[in-house]
Amino acid sequence: MDRYDIAVIGTGPAGLSAAVTAALRGKSVLLLGSRDLSEKLAKAPEIRNYLGLPDVSGAQLAAAFRRHLEQAGLVVTEKKISAVYAMGAFFALQAGEDMMEATAVILATGVVPGKELPGEKELLGRGVSYCATCDAPLYRGKTAAVIGYSPREEEEAAYLAGVCAQVLYFPVYPQQPDLPETVRIIREQVTAIEQADGRRLVRTEAGAYPADGVFVLRPAVAPDRLVPGLEADGPHIPVNRAMETNVPGVFACGDVTGTPYQYIKAAGEGNVAALSAVRYVDRLKKEMPDVPAL
Amino acid sequence: MDRYDIAVIGTGPAGLSAAVTAALRGKSVLLLGSRDLSEKLAKAPEIRNYLGLPDVSGAQLAAAFRRHLEQAGLVVTEKKISAVYAMGAFFALQAGEDMMEATAVILATGVVPGKELPGEKELLGRGVSYCATCDAPLYRGKTAAVIGYSPREEEEAAYLAGVCAQVLYFPVYPQQPDLPETVRIIREQVTAIEQADGRRLVRTEAGAYPADGVFVLRPAVAPDRLVPGLEADGPHIPVNRAMETNVPGVFACGDVTGTPYQYIKAAGEGNVAALSAVRYVDRLKKEMPDVPAL
Repeated sequence: MDRYDIAVIGTGPAGLSAAVTAALRGKSVLLLGSRDLSEKLAKAPEIRNYLGLPDVSGAQLAAAFRRHLEQAGLVVTEKKISAVYAMGAFFALQAGEDMMEATAVILATGVVPGKELPGEKELLGRGVSYCATCDAPLYRGKTAAVIGYSPREEEEAAYLAGVCAQVLYFPVYPQQPDLPETVRIIREQVTAIEQADGRRLVRTEAGAYPADGVFVLRPAVAPDRLVPGLEADGPHIPVNRAMETNVPGVFACGDVTGTPYQYIKAAGEGNVAALSAVRYVDRLKKEMPDVPAL
Repeated sequence: MDRYDIAVIGTGPAGLSAAVTAALRGKSVLLLGSRDLSEKLAKAPEIRNYLGLPDVSGAQLAAAFRRHLEQAGLVVTEKKISAVYAMGAFFALQAGEDMMEATAVILATGVVPGKELPGEKELLGRGVSYCATCDAPLYRGKTAAVIGYSPREEEEAAYLAGVCAQVLYFPVYPQQPDLPETVRIIREQVTAIEQADGRRLVRTEAGAYPADGVFVLRPAVAPDRLVPGLEADGPHIPVNRAMETNVPGVFACGDVTGTPYQYIKAAGEGNVAALSAVRYVDRLKKEMPDVPAL
């Protein structure tokens, strides 16, 4: 399997800045995110404090970032990472059924919308999953509930509809879901996930819905769920000034490291995270010169 | 005297980003530095990792920054600050014979070139000075030695030549100084400043030159010399993630906070420092509503 020097998870300003800096330093970069870059950025009406680009719209800033990616020879790999496993000298990144490898990982995932649900953490891996493509086979012919935090999650719900006997879909966004007719859409606010009689129970403000498996699908997985062993402070990852997390080889930048949520702050941190990751990769290669590189 | 909300010392990317963000947040900003912005930036042949402005020269990046300043209604005040005094609810900034006031101070002074000379710290205020305009009268009719770290310091040396009986000038740069004929230019590397027979002695690799006063003129004063009580770690100011220093109301950003020395990192930190300073000023105004504001 190809092993990248550095995997960057996230295509907002922090991830893009990290990817650009790492690529310019001669590292192979796996940039994971959306080809649309950042939804938040694209929708920003006006950004006035990104030094050097006065008074731009989010779309204009995104276009400038896209030009920079092209100039650096970077492409975005559109995969959603569900887990990052520390394997010693490298990390394995799981995206659905695909696995990828990188020597260092930079988390630029932004702030994950949606608080953790009561019961979510306790039942994770015991009937609660973050990855429909990974775990759908477990619920073949059974009932799956999907709590979807953005329209992008509908694709995974549709996939489940082809495997499971029944799919209940709880949208956590205002748009009307575009799903197969067999999917039952329930527009009620989910309050908890519970365990009952060997099955799961999705509790809402208005009722309770039994299911065999519950898929909680957010645009990004909470960072400490994503990387086992990673310290988190609520939705944020504590970092030092070098953007190092508590896991050696894992760096973080941008909104996920805490407030203020600002584009230029995120871009600056991405640069620092990349330089720290470059140093980490160089040191590791020196210590273990036979590590296969891309 | 007018009191600004926030004084920003330095016109590199960190200071400019701080000034832009503070101004956009409605604060009155005193931006102190050079109308040429940053010499280092202007001379950079190529900058490839300032996200959003791919492959620009330093001059192009500086031009983009200048447009941003104009759009934010900011002007640069060309004064060199020699000391910042904490006065309780505000700071007094000394520039030659002028004093200015600000509620909060952001240090974006970059890394000061030139290590502290042996004896410099010990004799500061006892025959060693950082400000010719301030202390020239003390050496009227006497001998002054000037150790100048950039051609910009020649102006102060010329001023001393009109006051003192003799001026010895030690240039610490390759260019030929442009100074009055009465100034004796000594191109020898200064190794220490000493005290001898009630006078000062400038020791070089080749000799020793007695003088009554010694002026050490760098493009910027070392941060812990600039702000009494400020903690420093060599040439750097330790900051937390909010860019707070150990002195309440004093914030720092950019190269002066440590490596990596990168433009986008500096700009990001400037933004964070400004938002922290804005919060500080707002809190202080709430606690003391009768503080006169500009």
